[in-house]
Amino acid sequence: MPRFFIETTKSVSTLPTNSRPKFFAFGIPDYTNLGDQAVSLASRKYIETEFPEFQYIEILEDDNDAGIEAVEKIITSQDVVSFVGGGNMGSLYTEHESARRKVFSTFVNNLTISFPQSIHFEETDFGHKQQQLSQAAYSRNPHLFLIARDAQSYHRMQTTFSNHVLFTPDMVLYMKAEDFHFQRSGALFALRRDGEKVVDDTLVESMKHLLDKPQRSIIQTDTVLDTVDHITPMTREKLFQQELELFAHQEMIITDRWHAMVFSVLTGTPCLLFGNSYGKGKHAYIDWLEHIDWIDYTDETDLTRLKAIIDRLIGTPKHDFDLRPDFGQLHQLIARHLKTIS
Amino acid sequence: MPRFFIETTKSVSTLPTNSRPKFFAFGIPDYTNLGDQAVSLASRKYIETEFPEFQYIEILEDDNDAGIEAVEKIITSQDVVSFVGGGNMGSLYTEHESARRKVFSTFVNNLTISFPQSIHFEETDFGHKQQQLSQAAYSRNPHLFLIARDAQSYHRMQTTFSNHVLFTPDMVLYMKAEDFHFQRSGALFALRRDGEKVVDDTLVESMKHLLDKPQRSIIQTDTVLDTVDHITPMTREKLFQQELELFAHQEMIITDRWHAMVFSVLTGTPCLLFGNSYGKGKHAYIDWLEHIDWIDYTDETDLTRLKAIIDRLIGTPKHDFDLRPDFGQLHQLIARHLKTIS
Repeated sequence: MPRFFIETTKSVSTLPTNSRPKFFAFGIPDYTNLGDQAVSLASRKYIETEFPEFQYIEILEDDNDAGIEAVEKIITSQDVVSFVGGGNMGSLYTEHESARRKVFSTFVNNLTISFPQSIHFEETDFGHKQQQLSQAAYSRNPHLFLIARDAQSYHRMQTTFSNHVLFTPDMVLYMKAEDFHFQRSGALFALRRDGEKVVDDTLVESMKHLLDKPQRSIIQTDTVLDTVDHITPMTREKLFQQELELFAHQEMIITDRWHAMVFSVLTGTPCLLFGNSYGKGKHAYIDWLEHIDWIDYTDETDLTRLKAIIDRLIGTPKHDFDLRPDFGQLHQLIARHLKTIS
Repeated sequence: MPRFFIETTKSVSTLPTNSRPKFFAFGIPDYTNLGDQAVSLASRKYIETEFPEFQYIEILEDDNDAGIEAVEKIITSQDVVSFVGGGNMGSLYTEHESARRKVFSTFVNNLTISFPQSIHFEETDFGHKQQQLSQAAYSRNPHLFLIARDAQSYHRMQTTFSNHVLFTPDMVLYMKAEDFHFQRSGALFALRRDGEKVVDDTLVESMKHLLDKPQRSIIQTDTVLDTVDHITPMTREKLFQQELELFAHQEMIITDRWHAMVFSVLTGTPCLLFGNSYGKGKHAYIDWLEHIDWIDYTDETDLTRLKAIIDRLIGTPKHDFDLRPDFGQLHQLIARHLKTIS
């Protein structure tokens, strides 16, 4: 029995039978990666804020097959289908990719939106095979709009698929954080333990020594929580807020997680981002965030140069920024759809 | 008397009186910057190849006022207005910016395309004043589509203007060069002598010593020619081809000119690009060209590190690449227009 998460109640529910246009959000995570959770939260906030005409209905990726079957029975041409954004389009996370393929190739008569993603198919036989499967599935849907969250992915999507491709930031950059005004102390290392990790452990230890001063505690953690087993649309907002509060207490974030940089942007926390295996953080930083002074990206391995960067970031005051106009192409797409059904 | 350059004849002409849809290309340079000349050539090739329905008519920026007046008398709703692309939107080149404002704010009832640009308004009183003038002019045209050629400019256009903003590469990346198969020898330094220059002269001299070997001559030049006084739509293609041949003879290009990198891409010539005053080359490289192995961008000043990069580039073989799908948003815009008039 698929679970549907519908706005206002924010509880598990059956599918509604009213006549409002529906916005079906597939691929919703229940695993504990707070970056991915923040993406699905931000997508809901985006649609509820900008297009309140829609009834927003989330379907967990775990319920993908049963969810598709149930939605097929009630969907009409005024409804929009979407699949969650993030950094997992391609051959590295095949469970997500195959859920995505099934959604895109099923609802071929509806406006279908792939929320902002990074894409990476590996240059191996396995990667090529996966790419062919995705090409076959995506090409069945003439109303599918892929959205890239960095220019490298925009190029890759346009050269890989025949679908429309739009360009916006990661959905989490639509969010705003409250101004916490916490006394900052401590440095937080938010580091991957997965296959995308490339930062050298010795370098990490050296940076800890660099930042480890009498008045500054060092925390090493990850934005993937191990304190809970699952996160759902009912619990994610509180955990997201707690994470922002944790960040807002720090003097410095060292990370190789793109969303740790995003949380640093939202909370005005100095942050230095290192690379992952295929450059998704680097590209998203350079495309959207280079004008934000208290964060930086680096591939540097020289400790003296790193110290200079970290010292500069810690001393940089917060300033205003606004990335909401950058979601213009997504806005126009949905506005155009609403015009055709009104 | 404004001069019009019309396809097929490629000669100066009066405005035609036939019933074909017209594509008016304003802002065409007659100065000797080969990068800017290549942009206007590539835009013509693009429209003539992809949309042969249009009669493509170029108007020199020098004839902007008289050209506008003449076009106003014959333009109909099926016609498209455009202004040339490049790296000069903003407050650094006010003669270009004011010609652009006049075109955008005159043809407010026609689909108006600002070919791919980088944008930079200086953070000064003068820059703010210029920005306000552009905002006032652009906002008069509801059918104006700005195209950014890098993500930084895409963000800046969307936060500066209320117009639609699209994202494609620089038009010159639509071009293809023949495979010259020349024996390569020599290194070419193509360096700015203008206000955007930031590369240190001492560093340039050091790199010349690095590359200056018995069998390798060093040329210092610029992609702005001083061998001719003017370049027109009738003479530019030959000069562009000569420049590609010059590049195709080199073992290495050292430059701070974005279009020198583009010519290196087209000819398969190893190239190292340094920054300009506001990052336009860096951003365009990272957004579109990072996957091309024989070119690189750097801010490095350490000669040992630079030598390693140059040696790697010289040893890198050419491979296939295709940026044409990246012009998809421009293609769809014009295709949609043609559909409405058919």
